[in-house]
Amino acid sequence: MARHTIYLDNAEFRGDELVISGDEARHAVRVKRVRSGDKVRLVDGCGTVMTTEVLDAGRDLVLKLLETRRVPRPTPRLEVWGATPKGARLDRMVDGLCQVGAASWIPTTFGRSVVDPRSTKLDRLERIVTEAVKQCGRPWLMEIGGRSTFADAIDAPSEVAVVVADASGDAPIPQACTEIRLLIGPEGGLTDQELSHARDAGAQICRFGSHTMRTEVAAMVAAAILLAHQSHPTENGS
Amino acid sequence: MARHTIYLDNAEFRGDELVISGDEARHAVRVKRVRSGDKVRLVDGCGTVMTTEVLDAGRDLVLKLLETRRVPRPTPRLEVWGATPKGARLDRMVDGLCQVGAASWIPTTFGRSVVDPRSTKLDRLERIVTEAVKQCGRPWLMEIGGRSTFADAIDAPSEVAVVVADASGDAPIPQACTEIRLLIGPEGGLTDQELSHARDAGAQICRFGSHTMRTEVAAMVAAAILLAHQSHPTENGS
Repeated sequence: MARHTIYLDNAEFRGDELVISGDEARHAVRVKRVRSGDKVRLVDGCGTVMTTEVLDAGRDLVLKLLETRRVPRPTPRLEVWGATPKGARLDRMVDGLCQVGAASWIPTTFGRSVVDPRSTKLDRLERIVTEAVKQCGRPWLMEIGGRSTFADAIDAPSEVAVVVADASGDAPIPQACTEIRLLIGPEGGLTDQELSHARDAGAQICRFGSHTMRTEVAAMVAAAILLAHQSHPTENGS
Repeated sequence: MARHTIYLDNAEFRGDELVISGDEARHAVRVKRVRSGDKVRLVDGCGTVMTTEVLDAGRDLVLKLLETRRVPRPTPRLEVWGATPKGARLDRMVDGLCQVGAASWIPTTFGRSVVDPRSTKLDRLERIVTEAVKQCGRPWLMEIGGRSTFADAIDAPSEVAVVVADASGDAPIPQACTEIRLLIGPEGGLTDQELSHARDAGAQICRFGSHTMRTEVAAMVAAAILLAHQSHPTENGS
């Protein structure tokens, strides 16, 4: 397995060789201890993955291309429509959702939301995603969606399974599906009216643990459980 | 549902009333906006839970005891034997494991471990657990175990299902069990020798996601998935 992942943007093609220089090369050699003969993976965040072997690990990292392949988007596609936690908790949530394998995070305003992410903050999230993708070796970037509302969130196409995380729900039942939209409310949870609207719109209300979880932990954990269910789904949901 | 949880240690009994004063009272009234007529939960971290109603929310919080009950230890009992991430990542992991519902965290040294928690650090973790328990309303504290080694971790009693989180494993299969020991290795994972020892000792090697996860995210997510499996276990593991 490759011991390090680098973005294709940072590679310069010289014939059959790829050269990584500057900070990326220094990080690979000094921090990640990449050495000649090691495998390094290159990704573009859009499904192209190159496997290379290190020819030289000095000031520059010189790589030999061994294989290029396309990795399809993972299924199910899991969108997380979530309230925005404050400050560093938002960064950690986005980082965690990348590692867990969410396809996208959409900052969503709920009745009890107190944080409205400004566009500068959302710009910062793109950088967090870029770093997380490299760290966890994802072939596909996690998308950061535009600001949305609870009403947008429950207005999903019929093929999308909408799941609302709430302590009032039942344990989620493993079900095979190709698109899941997970709603994670703010501290204090969804209002009774929102829960009622969600039920009317056909959403499942599910609890993902025995205790109250902070928004960022709930988001990671619920996303991970829903994706894990797809490994052993019960076709008929029973 | 109670909107706030306080430790029994902070309550003074005056006949049928309980009085909370000082910082705890200020936090409840100013930050958590507890008001007369609200329900407040009191826990001792060892299974005793009292439900109270707020009689007065001023400088002191005066509570009327409505009900005392004992909550059994949750099953399955999930122990997390994990590598110690650095600095704030350790704090977040312990906080997250509390929210997810782990019974204990045991700092474990693996072949590739780089952090050896000093006893001062472990003391700090007890405080993090105390805060997390209050925040998430757990009736039982999460225990912080003594420093252990990988050899201790795989030497489990026969009734304990040992699960090692590793990218080389298969997706975990829902199985009914009462005690689970989850091993989470350091950055860089377990060595081949450790994986081989674990298999020989009867452990299951399981992967909990498609991507490489940081230790603290892997610990939370794997614990949550194993506990969620117990909601819909497959008795025969098929």
